[in-house]
Amino acid sequence: MASPGERVEEAPYDWSQRLARRSAGPGDVIERLSLGDGRARIELTGSVPDRDLYPSEEFRRILSDVMREAGPALLDYGAWEGYLPLRRWLADRLAAQGAAISEEDLYIINGAQPGLDLAGKLLIDEGDRVVVESPTYYNAIGVFRLYGAELLPVPVDGEGMRADLLEETLAREKVKLVYCMPTFQNPTGLTMGRARRRAILEVARRHGVAVLEDSFASELRYGGKEEAPLRALPGGEDVLLLGTFSKMLFPGLRLGWLVAPPVLRAPIRRLRRCSDLAAGLLAQAAIHRFCESGLLEKHLLKVRRTNGRRLDALVRSMEAHFPEGVGWTRPEGGMSLWVTLPRRIDSIEVLLEARRRGVNFSPGRLFHVDGGGANTFKLSFTLEKEERIAEGVQIIGEIIGEKIAGRGARAQDAPSVII
Amino acid sequence: MASPGERVEEAPYDWSQRLARRSAGPGDVIERLSLGDGRARIELTGSVPDRDLYPSEEFRRILSDVMREAGPALLDYGAWEGYLPLRRWLADRLAAQGAAISEEDLYIINGAQPGLDLAGKLLIDEGDRVVVESPTYYNAIGVFRLYGAELLPVPVDGEGMRADLLEETLAREKVKLVYCMPTFQNPTGLTMGRARRRAILEVARRHGVAVLEDSFASELRYGGKEEAPLRALPGGEDVLLLGTFSKMLFPGLRLGWLVAPPVLRAPIRRLRRCSDLAAGLLAQAAIHRFCESGLLEKHLLKVRRTNGRRLDALVRSMEAHFPEGVGWTRPEGGMSLWVTLPRRIDSIEVLLEARRRGVNFSPGRLFHVDGGGANTFKLSFTLEKEERIAEGVQIIGEIIGEKIAGRGARAQDAPSVII
Repeated sequence: MASPGERVEEAPYDWSQRLARRSAGPGDVIERLSLGDGRARIELTGSVPDRDLYPSEEFRRILSDVMREAGPALLDYGAWEGYLPLRRWLADRLAAQGAAISEEDLYIINGAQPGLDLAGKLLIDEGDRVVVESPTYYNAIGVFRLYGAELLPVPVDGEGMRADLLEETLAREKVKLVYCMPTFQNPTGLTMGRARRRAILEVARRHGVAVLEDSFASELRYGGKEEAPLRALPGGEDVLLLGTFSKMLFPGLRLGWLVAPPVLRAPIRRLRRCSDLAAGLLAQAAIHRFCESGLLEKHLLKVRRTNGRRLDALVRSMEAHFPEGVGWTRPEGGMSLWVTLPRRIDSIEVLLEARRRGVNFSPGRLFHVDGGGANTFKLSFTLEKEERIAEGVQIIGEIIGEKIAGRGARAQDAPSVII
Repeated sequence: MASPGERVEEAPYDWSQRLARRSAGPGDVIERLSLGDGRARIELTGSVPDRDLYPSEEFRRILSDVMREAGPALLDYGAWEGYLPLRRWLADRLAAQGAAISEEDLYIINGAQPGLDLAGKLLIDEGDRVVVESPTYYNAIGVFRLYGAELLPVPVDGEGMRADLLEETLAREKVKLVYCMPTFQNPTGLTMGRARRRAILEVARRHGVAVLEDSFASELRYGGKEEAPLRALPGGEDVLLLGTFSKMLFPGLRLGWLVAPPVLRAPIRRLRRCSDLAAGLLAQAAIHRFCESGLLEKHLLKVRRTNGRRLDALVRSMEAHFPEGVGWTRPEGGMSLWVTLPRRIDSIEVLLEARRRGVNFSPGRLFHVDGGGANTFKLSFTLEKEERIAEGVQIIGEIIGEKIAGRGARAQDAPSVII
């Protein structure tokens, strides 16, 4: 052992031998594309609200009010389950959507992503199989793999995950969990109708497979009719339902919720005790006051109106500027839609050129478990105003046209449109 | 498949078959003792600051100021690494303590517990061995086991983890990580002197074992001389250093930090992307303004003075009311100290009686990997005022006296005092 005063001389520490397998991988397409590093002039990627819509001044006043009334108590550790008035308010809101749940079964968490992490901790052992929609949210792919899941993609059609292909998969493989976004799916924006919801639920239950329903953007409807969450349907009592304030309000407080059946209370408590203890209490109290005062509804009216206009602008621009042979989904809400190019066109090549011209979007391979989806991409429409969306689409359309011309695409390259 | 309108009839869902092994356990002594359910009249458990000390009004004004200046931007997702001005401020503070680190290597996280979770994700594969102090923080035991670690306890003496026993352990076993709290260790309150720090670091480095240094309470010094963190010592460049605002300021914002060598940046980024994305941005901006305005230093003066008085009151009360044969540590700071009873006395039996008389503390078995420590317990002194600490200690002392008399404890039952 070196004496106390002695300088320790060593070769540089070799971390490569010491990382866990889950963190030692070669990186993935997301990292190679350096998503999130800097912002393009026209940003059509991500699922991020427009900060120009944030009710910042109202929220400032509410923060000040709750601090004045109960400041010291709100700076303490809160209950691990979350701030009770907020849990009640959310449970009542879900009840109004048909999901009769008790606030006892609703836990406040640090956003939807930590909810996926919690579900992974709770359910996934190394080698367990998890069904995801194809395409699906790329950070769900990441978190389930982090807990050792083998992911089985089930393709979507115009109504989200196909129930017949889910049935085939569950009949063939022993599966632990089905992860789905029934409303305004990320990345496609697609929504399951009631019959599809019932079918997915029935298949999963018949095979004894847990369902994790991610309703991250379900409040962002700009047309069509409301659909109750899976959790609210007959037989949906065991569905784990995940929600967040990050899309319908703003993400900077990191608050979401997880609804889980009573039997999971003790395991969830145990996991949270050693993972994150609790969500921020002040943030919860302020959000609760904001919601309770009717300000969330007021804000949602504005957001829905604005986003709806942007979605319209996006679709009109694509109709005007995208070449023949390009297809896209028609969402009734959410934050993005899904574009399918002729088969030989790689959206990453389009993206690299688009970035040179100041436009960013998310290439389809990010959302595929198996490296597929090369001829697809996601366009988000919540962050930019209509004129810039139109400008971005025009640029992307030009590039697609150049690629099609360059490849000499023929009739058999027509897109395998998913709608 | 059921038709859409058909009610799905099923046996109740069997979750016991579907939980991950890590969450399906039988529960542990913490759960059996229902720690954290309700508060006793005199609360000498936990590591929680006294809310009467929180600078609530100052913080309210600062929240309002930063919201007025930059509200919408602060409600966005922030950078995954954290709010740059806060990272700089913390890096500068660490530099003043001798740890010359770049803000590039300091990441803001949602508190210290999520930092342990992140370290677990980053480093621990199923079956990896992790050295912990014995006794150690019970939620560290929990989180390392969550990632499949086998825990190897290394006993502490009056200066924390024993370097000679660490050497023995690392020579005998292939170990991935050493977790330690060199300053005001939880639960003992003990602090490593400079020689011990150098020895621990040297042993770990020589065996190529990573070190995670938890400095959760290192700002709470009430006497003695400052010790630089392991991260600041020669050869300490690869130490992972964890810190938090939860103990020196307040916990309700859930903010901490992790310092890690540059080579870990990409893995940390990848893990955070799919676990929690980022810490709350508004909270970070407000804490930064609070710190930068000199209010943290002002607050720390008050906290140190108050806690120091409470520690004195605790020690004086134990001297007055604890029977012969009971020993305890003499911390120079932190939030708790460690009591050792004669060998045949079980602190859980003392606790159950103390609770009936309105006093709560933390039994020693919580802090032991191997179920040991039955004759030990932790007393926290930050939450209650001096008179109540004295009252609580008197009650505990009476109960210990009764137990000793009841057991007819003899000379050979003298405590194995760890100091």
